[in-house]
Amino acid sequence: MNVTRKGMLIVVSGPSGVGKGTVVHAFLERYQTARLSVSVTTRARREGEIEGVNYFFRTVPEFEKMIERGEFLEYMRVYGMNYYGTLRSHVFESMENGYDVVLEIDVNGAMRIKEVCPEAVLIFIAPPSMSDLKTRLYGRGTETDDVIERRYREAYVEMGYLRSYDYVVVNDVVDKAVDTMCHILDAERCRIARNEDLLNSIDEEIKKYD
Amino acid sequence: MNVTRKGMLIVVSGPSGVGKGTVVHAFLERYQTARLSVSVTTRARREGEIEGVNYFFRTVPEFEKMIERGEFLEYMRVYGMNYYGTLRSHVFESMENGYDVVLEIDVNGAMRIKEVCPEAVLIFIAPPSMSDLKTRLYGRGTETDDVIERRYREAYVEMGYLRSYDYVVVNDVVDKAVDTMCHILDAERCRIARNEDLLNSIDEEIKKYD
Repeated sequence: MNVTRKGMLIVVSGPSGVGKGTVVHAFLERYQTARLSVSVTTRARREGEIEGVNYFFRTVPEFEKMIERGEFLEYMRVYGMNYYGTLRSHVFESMENGYDVVLEIDVNGAMRIKEVCPEAVLIFIAPPSMSDLKTRLYGRGTETDDVIERRYREAYVEMGYLRSYDYVVVNDVVDKAVDTMCHILDAERCRIARNEDLLNSIDEEIKKYD
Repeated sequence: MNVTRKGMLIVVSGPSGVGKGTVVHAFLERYQTARLSVSVTTRARREGEIEGVNYFFRTVPEFEKMIERGEFLEYMRVYGMNYYGTLRSHVFESMENGYDVVLEIDVNGAMRIKEVCPEAVLIFIAPPSMSDLKTRLYGRGTETDDVIERRYREAYVEMGYLRSYDYVVVNDVVDKAVDTMCHILDAERCRIARNEDLLNSIDEEIKKYD
């Protein structure tokens, strides 16, 4: 890995049921410079979860102080209950160390990241079709119809943000979706705006020649 | 190949000596949906060259009539001698048939394409460094020092346009440069702006649900 190069910030969103977690997990296994961002949460730690690996666990008052101090790139409160947030310092330190940091967050968080880090790469994992998504949601068979119906409504709302993303990756076959994510990152690495060091060194050589 | 999907327009530039031809040739072998655009030229046909395969051969008066009729996306006249041009109809027909059309043209042509087709993907093949490029130019050993010196000056001018491109691909190892070009095209295919059909079909499904 090239640690001298600053990493990229990658936002991955997609509706519940699209298989986003599976794609992101397989992507992280494959793409050596990518690391999942560890979120801060106020929810209780579950058996086996490790501080700093699964989450940074904080109390609500602690979390709210961190909000006041502007420590979050984005945060949300789920149904007025638990907070979840992305720590600015955690993300930027990883990037400075050459890692491409992946945020798996919802559309609201993604829009917020786009505001504060316009150079972030926003990827939306989409189902091949909405009817396919419905089949996947019902196919799980682990939740009540009410829960599924709510997820499906939320999925519709999330899909409405698709046009604000940079890329859409259709999760038809997981392996292909993972390949595509890897290729998007390879391509983004070659974007002119991400190669200031190279361009500046060429400029220097051109000046010497003039 | 998916012929129902409109192809992309890919512009590849790079200074003389960078190995652009080798990279483009290997890329075309590898990337099944890509085709090199056949240029129109007024220069004499050489032994073995085939009309419509290597070039479309035209006389100077014919070429100038085509200019008047606006048949070119871009054209140039080399040292006041021969014309070279990219035929609008040839490019657009290939794209309509689902092919990604590759134009291997100089920086002026590329800037012209960017004006008339803002959705074109502009790739610049760069040497690892300018001193590396000088070594490559001299290493050929087939031209006089004057010719090399002129090429090198031109290379410097071309490099000055790098910031107007979308991507820079450093040709250090040919195979890696070709991989990168393939990945750039895969990524571009997933750009939101290139997936209007998918987005519209999702919009339709969302409207039905509301």
